[in-house]
This record gives sequence, C-alpha cells and structure tokens, in this order.
Amino acid sequence: MNLPEQLAAIVGAANVLTTPEDTAPYLTDWRRRYHGTAAAIVRPAATDEVARIVRLCAASRVPIVPQGGNTGLVGGATPDDSGAAVVVSLQRMNRIRAIDTANDTITVEAGCVLQAVQDAARAAQRLFPLSLAAEGSATIGGNLSSNAGGTQVLRYGNARELALGLEVVLPGGDVWDGLRGLRKDNTGYDLKQLFIGAEGTLGIITAATLKLFAQPAAQITAIAALASLPDASDLLGRMRGEVGPELTAFEVMSANALRCLLQQFPDKRLPVSAPQPWYALVELSDHESAQHATERLEAVLGAALDAGVVRDAAVAQSIADAQAMWAIREGIPEAQLRAGGNVKHDVSLPISAIPEFVAATNAALEARFPWIEPITFGHLGDGNLHYNFGTKAGIPVAVAFEHQHEISTVVHDAVAARGGSISAEHGLGQLKRDEIRRFKSPIELDLMRRIKAALDPDNLMNPGKVI
Amino acid sequence: MNLPEQLAAIVGAANVLTTPEDTAPYLTDWRRRYHGTAAAIVRPAATDEVARIVRLCAASRVPIVPQGGNTGLVGGATPDDSGAAVVVSLQRMNRIRAIDTANDTITVEAGCVLQAVQDAARAAQRLFPLSLAAEGSATIGGNLSSNAGGTQVLRYGNARELALGLEVVLPGGDVWDGLRGLRKDNTGYDLKQLFIGAEGTLGIITAATLKLFAQPAAQITAIAALASLPDASDLLGRMRGEVGPELTAFEVMSANALRCLLQQFPDKRLPVSAPQPWYALVELSDHESAQHATERLEAVLGAALDAGVVRDAAVAQSIADAQAMWAIREGIPEAQLRAGGNVKHDVSLPISAIPEFVAATNAALEARFPWIEPITFGHLGDGNLHYNFGTKAGIPVAVAFEHQHEISTVVHDAVAARGGSISAEHGLGQLKRDEIRRFKSPIELDLMRRIKAALDPDNLMNPGKVI
Repeated sequence: MNLPEQLAAIVGAANVLTTPEDTAPYLTDWRRRYHGTAAAIVRPAATDEVARIVRLCAASRVPIVPQGGNTGLVGGATPDDSGAAVVVSLQRMNRIRAIDTANDTITVEAGCVLQAVQDAARAAQRLFPLSLAAEGSATIGGNLSSNAGGTQVLRYGNARELALGLEVVLPGGDVWDGLRGLRKDNTGYDLKQLFIGAEGTLGIITAATLKLFAQPAAQITAIAALASLPDASDLLGRMRGEVGPELTAFEVMSANALRCLLQQFPDKRLPVSAPQPWYALVELSDHESAQHATERLEAVLGAALDAGVVRDAAVAQSIADAQAMWAIREGIPEAQLRAGGNVKHDVSLPISAIPEFVAATNAALEARFPWIEPITFGHLGDGNLHYNFGTKAGIPVAVAFEHQHEISTVVHDAVAARGGSISAEHGLGQLKRDEIRRFKSPIELDLMRRIKAALDPDNLMNPGKVI
Repeated sequence: MNLPEQLAAIVGAANVLTTPEDTAPYLTDWRRRYHGTAAAIVRPAATDEVARIVRLCAASRVPIVPQGGNTGLVGGATPDDSGAAVVVSLQRMNRIRAIDTANDTITVEAGCVLQAVQDAARAAQRLFPLSLAAEGSATIGGNLSSNAGGTQVLRYGNARELALGLEVVLPGGDVWDGLRGLRKDNTGYDLKQLFIGAEGTLGIITAATLKLFAQPAAQITAIAALASLPDASDLLGRMRGEVGPELTAFEVMSANALRCLLQQFPDKRLPVSAPQPWYALVELSDHESAQHATERLEAVLGAALDAGVVRDAAVAQSIADAQAMWAIREGIPEAQLRAGGNVKHDVSLPISAIPEFVAATNAALEARFPWIEPITFGHLGDGNLHYNFGTKAGIPVAVAFEHQHEISTVVHDAVAARGGSISAEHGLGQLKRDEIRRFKSPIELDLMRRIKAALDPDNLMNPGKVI
C-alpha cells in the first residue's frame, strides 16, 4: 500500500484527501501568504486514530503538519512545498467530552471551534473567557498550540493560563494522558507547558481540560478620548487600582486607526465629541449588577475627567451601545484590509515603556520615511500593540510594502531594546522563525533546540516552524 | 587547591562553610526528617558567582543542591549522606532589583524572603499575593522552584502563575536571562515553565520578574458552620457565582480539626454557635470599600442560611475579628504538632469529587483501623486538602505512625482513582519521589527523564529529587 492507502486504512478513504481541489484549502493560510504541498490531508476522528497516523508517519520518516481551524497568522499550519508532509486536520475531533460545573472545568477535543466551547460553557451557566476575532472558525487545539491571547487576557490570561490538562499524541505515536482538572498538582515537571505555544512542533494536542468561570452579571463598556498615550497609561493605572479584577478589557486606538475605520465604514459613529489623538475602550465585568458596574465606571471616568486625564468619555447605556463601541475597535483590522493593507507588527512591551516606545519609534520612522503613517491599536492593558504602518493620503500603500523589511527591522530593534517581544500573541510559525534568531540569545536558542531534540529527535513534527 | 578553597576563591572564605556546627542548619530540613552531609555550603552573593560555582562543580562532577530558606516539606533542599554535594545557599542574593508600578512588576533575587517581596510591593501601593505560613523565612526562589501555593491561589494562582520571567544558572554554568516583564510573549517554547516546580533539578533560579496587583480597598472574612462537606461545596459554588474574582479564600476545617485546635489553644473562640461537622472560612477582597464587601458577603451568607446550606455564620466586624478567624485556620498545623503529630497528606482532587472522596476514604480507613481519627482541613476552593490522620482519645499517636505506610497507600490510591494528585502544593523532593512512580504513566515518566537528560545530562543538579 502507498501512504494514502495506509492512512485510509486508519481513518477511511473519505478522510484522506489527495486531489488538488480537495487539498487546496488545507495548503494555504487564510491570509494566503503561504502555500505548500502535501502527500495527503488526513482527517482523524479520535485520539487513537491520530496516534496510529503518527506511528505510521514516524515509521516512514514522513513529516507531520498539525492543523486546526487554519486561522493562524504566521504560517504555522501550512506545509512546505516539498510535498513530503502529511497534514493532520483535527477538525473532526470536535466533541465536548465532559463539563463539570462543581469543578468549573470543561474537557474538549482539539478540533472544537472556540465558539462551540464558549457556547457549551454558557449553556452550563459558566464563562469560558478566551475570545478573539477568529473564534467562529479557530479551534481550541490551535488556540492552545499558539497560546492565543485576545480581548480578555487582562483578567483571565492567555490560552496557557486557561488550560489545566492536556492529552497529546507524542512524536513517536504514544499518547500522553495529562487530562487533569486540578488547580494544584506539584508532582514533577509541568509537561503541558511544553506543548502549549509550541505550534505543533513537539506533538499534537488532541484534547484539553480547561478552566471555567462564573458568568458576570453585567459587562459595561465605555470609550474615553485622550490627549496622549501617557494619559491612556494613567487611565489604565487608575482603573486597575479602582476596580481591580473587574477590569476585563483596556484597548487603545490612535486617531489614525480611527480615521482608517471611519473612512471605510462611514456609518460608524464615535460616541465622544472632540477629536483627540487617542481613544481607549474599557470594559468592566461585574458580578453584582449593571447598575453597580455603571456607577463604578462613571466614578472612575469622572475622576479622570476632573483630573484632566480624560478629555471626554461615554459609558454604554445599553447592550446595543456596547456592541457599537466594540464594533469600532474590532472593525479596525477589516478597515485596514479594505484600505489596501499595511505593514503589521504584533509586539509587546512592559506597559511602562509603551508611551516612550511609540513616540521614539514613530519619530524615527517618520524621519526616515516622510510618507509613513502609523496606525496603532491594541491591548494596552496587556502591553500588546498592533503597531502597523500605512502611507499618508495620496501615497500608494505599495510604497510601505516596498520598505516592509526596513520598517520591521526598525520596529523590532526598538522593541528588543526595551525588553519587549516581536510576537506577542501570534507566534513564530514560518513568518518570524528567522527574525527571532536576531533577538534570542544563543543560550536560549540552545535550550529550545535541546527540548525539541529530546521530544522529537527525528524532527518530524511541523518541521520548519518555530525552531 | 581543594574544592572549598576553589569555592572560597569565588565567594570569599567567609562564605564557604565546612565545620559541623556551621553546616548543620543547611544539612537537615526544618521538620528534621532528613539529614545529609556535604563537601561544603557555599553562599554566593551574585548571579555571576552562582555561575562560576556551577562551572567549577560541573568540571569536577560535583553534585549541587540549591537551597533557599530551607522551609520545604519534602526534603527537596537536603543533600544525601554521601558527602559529595555542594549546597548552594541563595540567601545572600536578596536584593529587590527593580519595581515598575506602571507595568505592575517587581524583579527580585532568588534569596529574597517572601515577606520582603510582599513588603516591597506594599511600599509601592501594590499587592504581591503569594502568601503562606513560612513566608517569614521561605525565599522566593524556593517558592518558584516548588511552585508554592498558599492561601490566595483561588484568585491569584500558584507561584507559577505569578512569574513573568526568570534568570537561571543552567547545569553547565551558563546564565539564561529570561527576565522579561511581559504579559504576552509567544516567541517559542516558554522555557521559564521548565524551571518553575522543578525543585532545582534543572538549574538554579537566581532572579525573577513577578506580577503585582492593585491592593484591595478591604478584605472581609467570615466563618460559616455547615452540616456537611457537600454543603461546603454548595456554598463555594454560590460564592464563586455571586462575587466572582472577589473571592480570595475558601478554606474548610472539619470538626475534628477544630477540636484539635481548641484542645491545644483553649483561649481561642469560634464565632459561630452550634457545633457542626464542618466550618468554612471565606474571604472577600473588595476594591470598593469595607462596607460594600460586608454587604455582599452578608447577602450571600444570608441566602445560604435561608436555603439551609449554612447553619450559622459570622462576618468579621473588625480587623481583629478577621485576624482571630484566620488564627483559627492557621493554628491547626501547630495544634497538630503539639498533639504529637499525625499522618499527613497534601492531596488535590477535582472539587466535584471531594465530598465523595472524603466520605469513602474515611469509611475505608475507619473500617480497617477502628482507632483512627481523620483531621481534615485545607483549601477547598483549590481542591486541595490537608487530609491527615491521628488517633481517637486514649490511643497513642504512635499507633497511627506504625500504620503510616498502609494509611498513605489507601489515601493515595483513592486520590489517584479520582484523577487527583498526591502532592498538591509541597512537591516531590525525596519524600514522594518513589511513591509517585506508582501513579505516573511510563510515558509521563519517560517525558520527564528526557527533559532532565536534555538539560542536565550529567545529573548534577539536585540528584535524587523529583525524578
């Protein structure tokens, strides 16, 4: 039997794809920046099938590319163009295995779409807080493999912090059953941490036990207009101090980001009056009541207005108000796309370093490229900026893309000089695998290589990604 | 030069201890259950000195035992009796290197006593939430190496969740500088996770960047009397639902645990009336006001009283009240010691499994050992019980110790059968290194051995511990 026939013996012929039209969706990333080829796409429905596939591939030295919802932004789930690899799609492994409300945990298979996990939690009167733009098609296995971030990290942490246990098919085809639902377990090395964020290079996550939380009684949103990024940091500090863990989002948008949005979506309305250089979207999740949350939010914003930290502010008075506010923040990526795209960076820094970083780096780039226009937004509460660059009115965006490498070099060097990260929430994949070597110490790269060699000595798990 | 002279060339002769009286405190654990010998105790004052010590030891194949405040409970910091090892005490590395209130981070050296870290945070109007009985002498390096838990895990997580970055001297003597203060950083394997909870077997943590939090405006404590452990679980569920992240402690004590306390400390008074089989101590941390927290806590407890879930409850009306309540909970370990000790277990389970686990395991042990008396208390909110066994009135405690192995075997088997852990917050060290092999799968033990071999191929870092 050839390889596709051997795979078909495991999962059935219908779940081994080899024709160009069947395989095409699995061989390019959703932004269509990477294109690969594969010996086959295989779609297992159970952990045991994944294990048998991995054993088969390992015996024949066939590389494996695990894939979830294929919504990644760094090419981490796209095979190379050698045609040697088997893409293992986890999408058919989409069962909710168990939900335990007394333990506040849910156990799900890797192919569950994030939104399905959120829905299952909600149906049990619980919150699964991971939330991001691609939640309608991203899978939880991919979220864990890339340690996804999103809009609720400030309060609930990244995907890593939400995982209590994993089930993983290891490079040799053994199954590690680490599906524990424990908040405390100090019995040796915390192996699940190795696989979270490893982008499929150390094994295939097939299931996870995740934390659930109580649903808040109300979420109240507000938008504040600010004269500067230091004022936004000041407001963040005030909110952390005044409402503590009730602060579940603190997003910022520059005036340029907002202008980009309003040009593409002229029907959207900002609920604050005077134009200002920066805007913050804040959200409180309150376990008492909407009225209590509104009073608390108005009190903090009122004090910030009195202190001159905030120039104007609007608190959502209805769910429709709140949705309209979030639509402004969440519409920015789509508006950028419609405007022809721009040169993107997903960076994080110590929050204390952000105002100076933005001022200095904007100035350095504007001095070098008089046509450049920074479009900055992101999760200030997490120190995470989407720090992007387009062109001023009348200059084609293509000019920015021509200088993409130079712009990114300036940005990444400035990030590294301030102790930041060049990939806050998207991972390395193919996109940043080479670039990261400029910033990691030889000691750190050596540690990563030792881990990779210890778990995957034949380098068959997602080769060419991360390390 | 012999080894002590070579060490003295690095740290000065005053910081190399070799006489029996100088070395004695470093060669036994504080419960005095383990005793070892060592070639020397060395007390470096800087990371570079630690690196030079490790290089020296590696070149001569001398085993290294890292030690912080020497408050561990599993013999993890005590050398074996071969006399071959060098104990590296981190206690002189006790500087607060930096505090960044805008980023809510603090960077400290490993030898900082936990209380000193808490104090430095408080002086900057911030909270470092890790809190445990030994905080006056335990060091943060030891806390991280053992992934310490304590009384605030419910809201803030274990030591692992509080660390953003580490500096580690690796087994070869290289220094890995991973001191990042970032909430999001997805640039490869999260190496710090390897060293946290590894009990010094993969390297020596020399410094850490830790998360800080806003100080709450008020902490309000209450004690509730309950008819059963299922009722305690019910109350926990109500509190999580009603107050969400404001719930910072949910501790339980059995009537036997309370009786043990009151026998040893007859001046203590329980603020609730009728004797009941179980008691819960709950704490709310509120960012609004003491009045608000008290009202919220009274509302939840009032509803639980009306529903028959709680039999009686008292909310602290003053800081003195709250301290008296915590003194009851925190006095139990000392009371047990004064009563002659007992057979101890530090276990965790899914919270949903705890009532049935306690009922079934108590029954099994009472059937086998008619003289046995369970003394149960712990962190129900984290699924973590200190599940201990003494003897009934009139039976010497020695009888329990004679059956220690049989009792622990029953307990650990029952824990494992329900997906629990035999070491929730104390680690493995020497105490549970062999016992854990009964419960970890060969696949998991093999993964742990691969990690150990990849980082410490000569097995010089804290040999004989964990793995």
